[in-house]
Order: sequence, then structure tokens, then C-alpha cells
Amino acid sequence: MVALMQAKTAKRLAKRGPTAKKTALVRGEPVVRGILAATMEELAHAGYSALRIEDVAARAGVNKTTIYRRWPTKEELVRAALLSMGDDTICAPNTGALRSDLLALARKMVAIAGSPQGRSLTRVILAEGPDSELMTIAKSLRDVHEAVPRAMIEAAESRGELAPGIDAMLLFNVIGSAIHERLFLNRESVDDSFLNSLLDLLLLGAGPRRRPA
Amino acid sequence: MVALMQAKTAKRLAKRGPTAKKTALVRGEPVVRGILAATMEELAHAGYSALRIEDVAARAGVNKTTIYRRWPTKEELVRAALLSMGDDTICAPNTGALRSDLLALARKMVAIAGSPQGRSLTRVILAEGPDSELMTIAKSLRDVHEAVPRAMIEAAESRGELAPGIDAMLLFNVIGSAIHERLFLNRESVDDSFLNSLLDLLLLGAGPRRRPA
Repeated sequence: MVALMQAKTAKRLAKRGPTAKKTALVRGEPVVRGILAATMEELAHAGYSALRIEDVAARAGVNKTTIYRRWPTKEELVRAALLSMGDDTICAPNTGALRSDLLALARKMVAIAGSPQGRSLTRVILAEGPDSELMTIAKSLRDVHEAVPRAMIEAAESRGELAPGIDAMLLFNVIGSAIHERLFLNRESVDDSFLNSLLDLLLLGAGPRRRPA
Repeated sequence: MVALMQAKTAKRLAKRGPTAKKTALVRGEPVVRGILAATMEELAHAGYSALRIEDVAARAGVNKTTIYRRWPTKEELVRAALLSMGDDTICAPNTGALRSDLLALARKMVAIAGSPQGRSLTRVILAEGPDSELMTIAKSLRDVHEAVPRAMIEAAESRGELAPGIDAMLLFNVIGSAIHERLFLNRESVDDSFLNSLLDLLLLGAGPRRRPA
């Protein structure tokens, strides 16, 4: 994804010619991280509809043209901010077994969803309504978010750890739902004991175990 | 639960003596249903903290003393309103097999959670914050809400349909979480095709099936 964004930046720069190069912002630079963090904060504060680039600029302490230069529309800015969430922490675990991979990923999901950023994002998405632009942006990022599960499923399949015919992506979605429900609706903490019971249920199944190999 | 409430009413009447009997409201009477429905509507409109008995009375078209007589506190009124949700529809399915019981229950959960009442209740609970009185009331109703799953688990165990050592209540919670996530966070519909994939995953498990009986 970082590569994709760098490619896009390069393309945009090429259109503008060599002079634009000096002002290009590279992802990972402190100013970029500051703008994206400010965007998340404004999103939590004002919601998507009322979010203004001016307010993000003020919060980040930059000129608004600095933002427009890299993200010409509000949609692009918010998309980049959402993508930046958990950027440093989400990568496919590689423990050598599906169960321990799932436990490692679930712990990361708990950390991100339970963070102040994760909590306010959930609140904003719930408040914006079913056909909101924010919802559309969030859904468009699904492919990006599913990259980690896909890598884990592939590794598990190569080790023969998944039953044939099972909807493996649903396995990940159900883990996410169970974590969100506890954190946001029941307001309970999620510890390893809960995650282990959940993985027992999802990997072994609740039904009797008398099927042949 | 109905029996319990009737017993409480009888006790209250006994304290007041025979004259109170004329004004007693019996659960299921149109006026009671009207007050509880008005309470849910006010709750959706104002939230729990700002909910006033006067406004419920006005919405239901009754005198506020009619409400206070049966539910002396706001907490009791809201608890009764929450209990009345789905009262007519939730009873343990009895299809003779765990899987079809779960499918029947899941369909009812979708109908209740997706109703305007269910949606506004979720919104209000999410908005009220972690230590809200409404959250405390909702949690105190957990025993009541778990009566149906407990009956289904008992029946399934007697038919040998549950693996030993599995957390069967978690099975129900996970079905609920998956439905809520789709309805409230992803804003997607929940159809039988989704429910069947979910039940495949939860009953058969995602892991390889080569364990002995």
C-alpha cells in the first residue's frame, strides 16, 4: 500500500513537472503523520460531514495548501488517515500455526479498536448513518484490510490447517465482531482468556467431533 | 418473568389493601403496552439521562401518576420497557435439532435488532458511555435474556449435539455479535445465506476435521 501511494505521488509529481518535487510530502515524514493524526482527531470531533480542511490544518499547525497539495479532496485525506491507523502495528503474524497467528492478530485488533482513535472512529461511523460518505470510504478500504487475513489463510491452507469448504474470511470477521461487541456494546475488556475460548469455538466448532478425516 | 412481575404486583397490591386493586395495571393490557412503547420512544429520543416520566406520560397519553403507581422509579420503568422488547417473539425454538434451533433464533435476533426500536436502543446504549445507568440496567437483564440460550443448550446437550468443554453461551454471543456488526457497523443486511455460513463455521469449526469420536 505504501508502494502504491508512492507510485501515485510520483505520477502526480510527473504531471506537475520538476518544481513540484521540492514540496512533495513523503509518507512517514513527521508532517504527514501530524496531518493524518490531526485528520483523525477532527473526524472524531466533528464527524465527516462537518470536517473542514482548514480545521485539520490549524490542528496540525500547517498551511492548508500543504494539505491540498497532497490530498486534493476531503475524501482522499480521510481515506489516507484511515489507512494510516494501525499502519505501524498491522502486519500478518507469522508464528507457524493458524491458532497462534489468530491469537496474535486478535490481540492487535483489541489494541487498535480499544485505542482512543479506534473508539472515536467507531462512534463516528455509527453516527454518520448507513449511506454516509465515510461509510463508503471505510468500505472501499476493505480490500486493504483483508490483505492480512488473506496472507494468513494462504499460509494456513498450505499447512492443511483449514477445513475444506469453510468461509475462512468469515472466521476473521467473526473474531472482529466478537471483539467489537465486547468493547463497544458490552463495554467489557477483552483478555487472552476470552480470545482463547473464542478460538476454541471457531477452530474446533461447537458440534460433536465424530467426523472422519 | 411475567409470572415474577405478576407476583410483585400482587405483593404491592396486598400492601395497599383492596382499594388499590381497581387501578392496578396488568402487564399485557393496552395501557401498559402503550406506556412501555412510549418509554422506548422517549429513550430513543432523549437518551436515559434526560428521560423524564412526564414526557413518557404525555407521549402515552396517560397521567404521570398512572406510571408512578406501577413503576416508582425511572430505572424500573426503563427496565420494564427493555424487558417488553421482543416479548411476543422471543421464546426458545424447539425444532428438534441445535442447528435449526440456532437458525430460528438468529432470524428472530435479526428481526429485533434490525427493527427501529432495536436500532435506536443500540444507538442510545452506544451514546450513553461505559458506566451509564442504562448500561447497568441492560447488564442486569442478562440473566433474563440468557434463559432462551440456556434452554436451547440443555436440549442440545441431551441430544449429544454439543462438543464437551465448549463454551456454549459464547456460541450464542458470537452469533449476536456477528449480526450486530453487519447491521450496525457495516450496515449490511443479514440473510439466510450469511446465517448458514456462520452456523457452518461455528458448529463444524474452521480447523481440519480429523479428530476421533
